[in-house]
Amino acid sequence: MTAYEIIRRKREGQELSAREIDHMVTGLLAGDVTDYQMTALLMAVFFRGMTAGETELLTRSMLASGATIDTSSIDGPKVDKHSTGGVGDKLSLIIAPIAAAAGVVVPMISGRGLGHTGGTLDKLESIPGMSTAFSPHEFVSLVGEVGMAIVGQSPDVVPADRRIYALRDVTATVDCVPLITASILSKKLAAGLDALTLDVKVGRGAFMPTLDAGRELASALLATASRLDLPAVAVLTDMDAPLGRTVGNALEVTESVDVLKGAGPSDVRDVSLELAAQMIALAGLEDDIVASRAAAARVLDSGAALDVFTRFVEAQGGDPRFIEEPERLPTAPVVAAVTAGRGGEITAIDSLEIGLASVGLGAGRVRSEDEVDPAVGVVIETAIGCDVREGDALAFVHAAEEHTASPAVERVRNAFTIGGEPIGAGDRVLEIIERP
Amino acid sequence: MTAYEIIRRKREGQELSAREIDHMVTGLLAGDVTDYQMTALLMAVFFRGMTAGETELLTRSMLASGATIDTSSIDGPKVDKHSTGGVGDKLSLIIAPIAAAAGVVVPMISGRGLGHTGGTLDKLESIPGMSTAFSPHEFVSLVGEVGMAIVGQSPDVVPADRRIYALRDVTATVDCVPLITASILSKKLAAGLDALTLDVKVGRGAFMPTLDAGRELASALLATASRLDLPAVAVLTDMDAPLGRTVGNALEVTESVDVLKGAGPSDVRDVSLELAAQMIALAGLEDDIVASRAAAARVLDSGAALDVFTRFVEAQGGDPRFIEEPERLPTAPVVAAVTAGRGGEITAIDSLEIGLASVGLGAGRVRSEDEVDPAVGVVIETAIGCDVREGDALAFVHAAEEHTASPAVERVRNAFTIGGEPIGAGDRVLEIIERP
Repeated sequence: MTAYEIIRRKREGQELSAREIDHMVTGLLAGDVTDYQMTALLMAVFFRGMTAGETELLTRSMLASGATIDTSSIDGPKVDKHSTGGVGDKLSLIIAPIAAAAGVVVPMISGRGLGHTGGTLDKLESIPGMSTAFSPHEFVSLVGEVGMAIVGQSPDVVPADRRIYALRDVTATVDCVPLITASILSKKLAAGLDALTLDVKVGRGAFMPTLDAGRELASALLATASRLDLPAVAVLTDMDAPLGRTVGNALEVTESVDVLKGAGPSDVRDVSLELAAQMIALAGLEDDIVASRAAAARVLDSGAALDVFTRFVEAQGGDPRFIEEPERLPTAPVVAAVTAGRGGEITAIDSLEIGLASVGLGAGRVRSEDEVDPAVGVVIETAIGCDVREGDALAFVHAAEEHTASPAVERVRNAFTIGGEPIGAGDRVLEIIERP
Repeated sequence: MTAYEIIRRKREGQELSAREIDHMVTGLLAGDVTDYQMTALLMAVFFRGMTAGETELLTRSMLASGATIDTSSIDGPKVDKHSTGGVGDKLSLIIAPIAAAAGVVVPMISGRGLGHTGGTLDKLESIPGMSTAFSPHEFVSLVGEVGMAIVGQSPDVVPADRRIYALRDVTATVDCVPLITASILSKKLAAGLDALTLDVKVGRGAFMPTLDAGRELASALLATASRLDLPAVAVLTDMDAPLGRTVGNALEVTESVDVLKGAGPSDVRDVSLELAAQMIALAGLEDDIVASRAAAARVLDSGAALDVFTRFVEAQGGDPRFIEEPERLPTAPVVAAVTAGRGGEITAIDSLEIGLASVGLGAGRVRSEDEVDPAVGVVIETAIGCDVREGDALAFVHAAEEHTASPAVERVRNAFTIGGEPIGAGDRVLEIIERP
């Protein structure tokens, strides 16, 4: 068995065996398989796909490449939520406290922003003092103490994913369903979960541009999770327009706190409640999804979720005073209005363009080694379906400097469509997929 | 413009521009494009193909990566022959002297054997004293003096091909028509040719298993050569059964000399004369292909081609006494008969299996760094269409040791089909393709 023969077999559309998949994954880490051989296999997988069986084997092989986190010392059902990434996606900051307040144990391992999508860790780190770097042992302690924690991935957990993802990232093999599936599930399984809610985003600002593509990914995730004995539900959510009104790290933290206080944009509140309800239902804490939705709304409206959020911030070293005094978060020195070039009805807000404008301001990363600026971003002042007059403020760009503000203002202006048929004005929750 | 974007565009089936192709080729040599990015592109090209325009641009870019050989100081039309590789393919040793004897200047740059196919350089180096390593300057002198030379590729000519080929070889992207085309033509153009005859082999022992696949490669080679202003003709030749009776380096040299002396197997003689005639016609030395065929037969039968071969051997340091005394070439200590398991008509001789048996004996290479044994190989004692009785010798295996002989004897025995419909018993020349 050689890497050459395995690549050739996949190239010819044949199904790889467990030994062949292990040979490539363990060989890559051991140095017996080269980066370029792995990349050739990944591109062949892009074209030929993988069966559910192969995807399961790839997930297992990646999972076996490193340490796993033992959460068995914590009582209660461990359920996490994973999002495929969007623009203005601050949902983890809201959902985890809601689910935890309802009795779910939430050991959440998150990532950083890359490309036009943001990352939960970057958002949290805009909170003064807040840390997301904890050892697996500390992580388990935090989860046991607060009922939730959100940390970065430990380097010794699923090292094969890190190696393979770094190759995919620079060789145009990221948007490949079996590879996405194995990457997500291997990391989630390593965190010792009992169940998983998947937020599969669909639209302009998502990896999956269409509902059909989103369904394909959701279906692969659920099929593979089922083979791995991980109960899971997928919620397809709309990502044509940015989620909520803010894009940018500190700006999104403030908006999340607004929602946890019972205010904030209704789309963020609604989709957060649905995803949290799915976690509560998977945890078996309520009789059915209807009761789970009621429980989620109850702990949000009672302030119990905000209490968990406050304890979570404190436990991870953050100064919780920003919850009452948002001006304690970093603020940008330059705030520039984006005005409407003409009057009419707002019919679309292109989340990809808003995301790219935000990256241009420094809120995100072009390369993984880039630093992010916690203060900068975009605040949207209108919504799809609203009428604007020429000169009205559509949005504000929060920038570090004048010279970065101007191109962002133009980009954000072009992200708004005035007139025509509305796009993405409906419910954020498009579809819920379960496997019987 | 980034490697990522170029890979993604090809992955999506889009046509790459000259700048994009140059970016990848020059970037690979400069270290700006990684091996794994190039490999991802190569696998995407395997699936998406390249247009004739892209293949031309890739050829030009690879050609521009290194030095070219200036043959302008030599009078006369410079024409080479290139074979896509086969089993028992000693044709260069016969064709080059025929063409040169007829007035063609033959600056031939050849390769070594890899996998089941042999290489001209390995065959020549079985001649005592013979060298194939010459600088471009020495090469031009040899060609000017003798009318032909056969040497290895200089490392500073087409370095991009060497780098890319090394990646293709271990990532299952060798059998890809546009990549084969650019690799062949960039090297041939670097040798300062006026025209090129292509021997595209088809069948069990060839890269192209079917006539259709061979036509596809021939057509791509001719289309790209035309765009590069290199007149070319492709001859599709049958490679189901080994060419001639011998496979192995010194064994094939002896058979080549037999043909140059007017004897030897008729299939080798016939296909050599046709390919040499195409070179003579491309060189414009005769009125038409009919006259070119007559000229080729004339210089072969007169001994003029053998004279050129003798001078060629001497010029490259070889001891020409083996021409009259073939026992001066290396001989194998073990010669084992392969006998027929049953009687009947020989209907197929599988050249792939014979080639692999020969590699197993040490005549070829599994990896490019392997040494070859000049003495070993296989001599076939029968032919398709002949009747054999049980126990008759089908072939002899020439081996270095008893323990390498036994598996080769079994493999060679299994390469013979006795009974059924004959395969590959017709003319070696299947089709001649020219572009108007």
